[in-house]
Amino acid sequence: MNYITIEKLNNYYNQDIEIQGFIDRIRDLQYVQFLIIKDSTGKVQITIEKNDDNKNLNEIVSSLTPDSTLLIKGIVKENSKVKLNGMEIIPSSITITSKSSEELPLNYNNPESANLDTRLDYRFLDLRNEKNILLFKVQSYFVKAMREFLYNHDFTEIHTPKLIAAASESGSEVFEVKYFKDKAYLAQSPQFYKQMAICSGFDRVFEVAPAFRAENSNSYRHATEFTSFDLEFAYIKSYEDVMKLEEEMITYALSKVKEKYNDKIKELFNTEVVVPTLPFPRIKLNDLVKELETRYNYVTPKEDIGDMNNEMEKLTTKYAHEVYNHEFIFVTDYSSAKRPFYHMRKNNIPQGFDLIWRGCEITSGSQREHRYEVLKDQAEEKGLTNDVKFYLEFFKYGCPPHGGLALGIDRMTMLLLNLPSVKETMFLFRGPNRITP
Amino acid sequence: MNYITIEKLNNYYNQDIEIQGFIDRIRDLQYVQFLIIKDSTGKVQITIEKNDDNKNLNEIVSSLTPDSTLLIKGIVKENSKVKLNGMEIIPSSITITSKSSEELPLNYNNPESANLDTRLDYRFLDLRNEKNILLFKVQSYFVKAMREFLYNHDFTEIHTPKLIAAASESGSEVFEVKYFKDKAYLAQSPQFYKQMAICSGFDRVFEVAPAFRAENSNSYRHATEFTSFDLEFAYIKSYEDVMKLEEEMITYALSKVKEKYNDKIKELFNTEVVVPTLPFPRIKLNDLVKELETRYNYVTPKEDIGDMNNEMEKLTTKYAHEVYNHEFIFVTDYSSAKRPFYHMRKNNIPQGFDLIWRGCEITSGSQREHRYEVLKDQAEEKGLTNDVKFYLEFFKYGCPPHGGLALGIDRMTMLLLNLPSVKETMFLFRGPNRITP
Repeated sequence: MNYITIEKLNNYYNQDIEIQGFIDRIRDLQYVQFLIIKDSTGKVQITIEKNDDNKNLNEIVSSLTPDSTLLIKGIVKENSKVKLNGMEIIPSSITITSKSSEELPLNYNNPESANLDTRLDYRFLDLRNEKNILLFKVQSYFVKAMREFLYNHDFTEIHTPKLIAAASESGSEVFEVKYFKDKAYLAQSPQFYKQMAICSGFDRVFEVAPAFRAENSNSYRHATEFTSFDLEFAYIKSYEDVMKLEEEMITYALSKVKEKYNDKIKELFNTEVVVPTLPFPRIKLNDLVKELETRYNYVTPKEDIGDMNNEMEKLTTKYAHEVYNHEFIFVTDYSSAKRPFYHMRKNNIPQGFDLIWRGCEITSGSQREHRYEVLKDQAEEKGLTNDVKFYLEFFKYGCPPHGGLALGIDRMTMLLLNLPSVKETMFLFRGPNRITP
Repeated sequence: MNYITIEKLNNYYNQDIEIQGFIDRIRDLQYVQFLIIKDSTGKVQITIEKNDDNKNLNEIVSSLTPDSTLLIKGIVKENSKVKLNGMEIIPSSITITSKSSEELPLNYNNPESANLDTRLDYRFLDLRNEKNILLFKVQSYFVKAMREFLYNHDFTEIHTPKLIAAASESGSEVFEVKYFKDKAYLAQSPQFYKQMAICSGFDRVFEVAPAFRAENSNSYRHATEFTSFDLEFAYIKSYEDVMKLEEEMITYALSKVKEKYNDKIKELFNTEVVVPTLPFPRIKLNDLVKELETRYNYVTPKEDIGDMNNEMEKLTTKYAHEVYNHEFIFVTDYSSAKRPFYHMRKNNIPQGFDLIWRGCEITSGSQREHRYEVLKDQAEEKGLTNDVKFYLEFFKYGCPPHGGLALGIDRMTMLLLNLPSVKETMFLFRGPNRITP
């Protein structure tokens, strides 16, 4: 017999079934014993009367410890007196499949009882909190929906190497690997290789994979390893095509998430999934800077001129709400000094954008420079010629116009569920001071 | 106007359209010029008569070099005289979007003209071969179908860290990373962390991600980095449940691939997609050893007793064809000395399997040992106590019975398309002597 997941039990009233799960609660009363069993789909009550027929079962239940796992056979009964889903299981047998013999070092049902570091030390227990189980179901579903959108637009998924010979993009902030008798590095992003796919004639590609940054910084939105959702596609006319694809993809994915998980998210995270309207507003950085000054008396610090900083991102969201009644806003026309060499430029203006959502940058994207000579000059201007020599080769033998973007799924999840840090949305967070468990 | 992909041109006869692509061929004759343009979906002929009206176009075409990219506007005409798809485009404008100015260092249309190392040096050109474009579309579609199967069975996709504090599984063959003032390692597999998800109550998880092996070996089926398709699920009764899920998943995925790509695969790879029947045959290693000896006079070398080697895998496929008329076969009951410590054992027999397809092992799977004390003993027996201490912790506080498997998608693709090496099926191969481009 196969076990029935708890969410589907209401299809089996008065039938013999089998369930499996963790013990959520045990109540051993004078005349009756109650167990609450949970699997990743829900919780159900098991009711065992204390009497001679149940002697064996009663003894088992008395020996149980919370968080042990059980296999239970019995009959599902509808019972309106039971608060939990109006049902109970009357068991015919209970088998202990694993024992949690020790006191738990973390009360995962009450995360406030521990500081974040302790919770991360015991992440394998912390994740048992039903909010966290839901979080990863939502994240998985969100990524599924974005992939679905891309498959429907004829994108091919690729898997590019993370072990690379030269530091990608910048040279700093890259992890070094002992590679037999030589050195290698960990890719900071699949940027160069997804563009290689375009040079190779793949037309439209995406990748969902780890990216590595050796940044010694501790912030709510950074990690040394994170999951990057990258895409790149050929034959675009301008970066407008990239923004259009992104706003449609995000809107599609959020509407799928809302459909399936809005009620649960509301219940556990006290926030709602908002499906944005199309198109998202767009604004040039210079115009935005003026607006922020006029409206909020915000003056850009000297070092950030031509770029955004965290505070500007927050104010930009405020502005987008006020003026466009929108949660998202594309910011364009950054300074070329602040953008990577591979962004195409027109009149020295990078043909790219950042997307801001709920006070946080979630994407950088652009049309890429696909003409070898121009690309080479732009790399030289940034002093990168040697590190990117292998990459420049890709463009010598024809390469169509193209563009793309990257999106961090941990950060997206943080914003979607209104959480304070990516440390809460990564399966296992990695930072300068954390590489365990 | 949006460009039309070449495969969809037959929906636009006698209409003004725009296409984009690489120049596949140029024929500049006395009275007419022909261009063959390709994108990732196909090829099409552009026909330009030489006359005064076309003077401008004729000059552009005369200046073109193969592999440059073009944007072409014009009218699609049905023309039964044109061998290529019975259609041609009469252009009104041709724009050069990128120039391939140099002689190509690799004739990618004739891969036999170069050795494999040269092809891998110029992989960005090698991939332009239409077989390679198809290969990655097939691989992407195959993975998509497997994911689809798992979503339909309520699996959640997770992303586990590749930066780890201790060498996973064995201790040898692991890459070391400089991690700020400390050391880290690259995960050989997500084994420990996908099991952690089970301990955390996720019930059913999968991951598609890079795995890293510092093996200094050069074989047709190994790489230092490859894409691993991993899954793990709870509440199983035995490893039979794992085999059942795998055979159903593979059959589902292969039937999807056959439906969409069989004709193209037949045309370019001269092989067919075979959808296997269910269930796959199963045989115990001891019984198999006897069969191989009786049928093929094969005697297992001493060092491989209790395990398989490459030659046995090839003979096993021969045996599966002869006896079961099947391309797949599960081999079970290996020696515990040859299997990892985390496989559950009954009477000292590991409760796991390998899956053999077309002469090659594609999967190892098993029921895992989920009981802390037993697991700890098995780790100690293999001398691994220190390295796996963090992992053993996961099992102290209850963990349901579970099992899982891993499958290398590069190897699967190699076997599916009847190719000689994973070097041909990885976007960019990584080996002891190769970390570029």
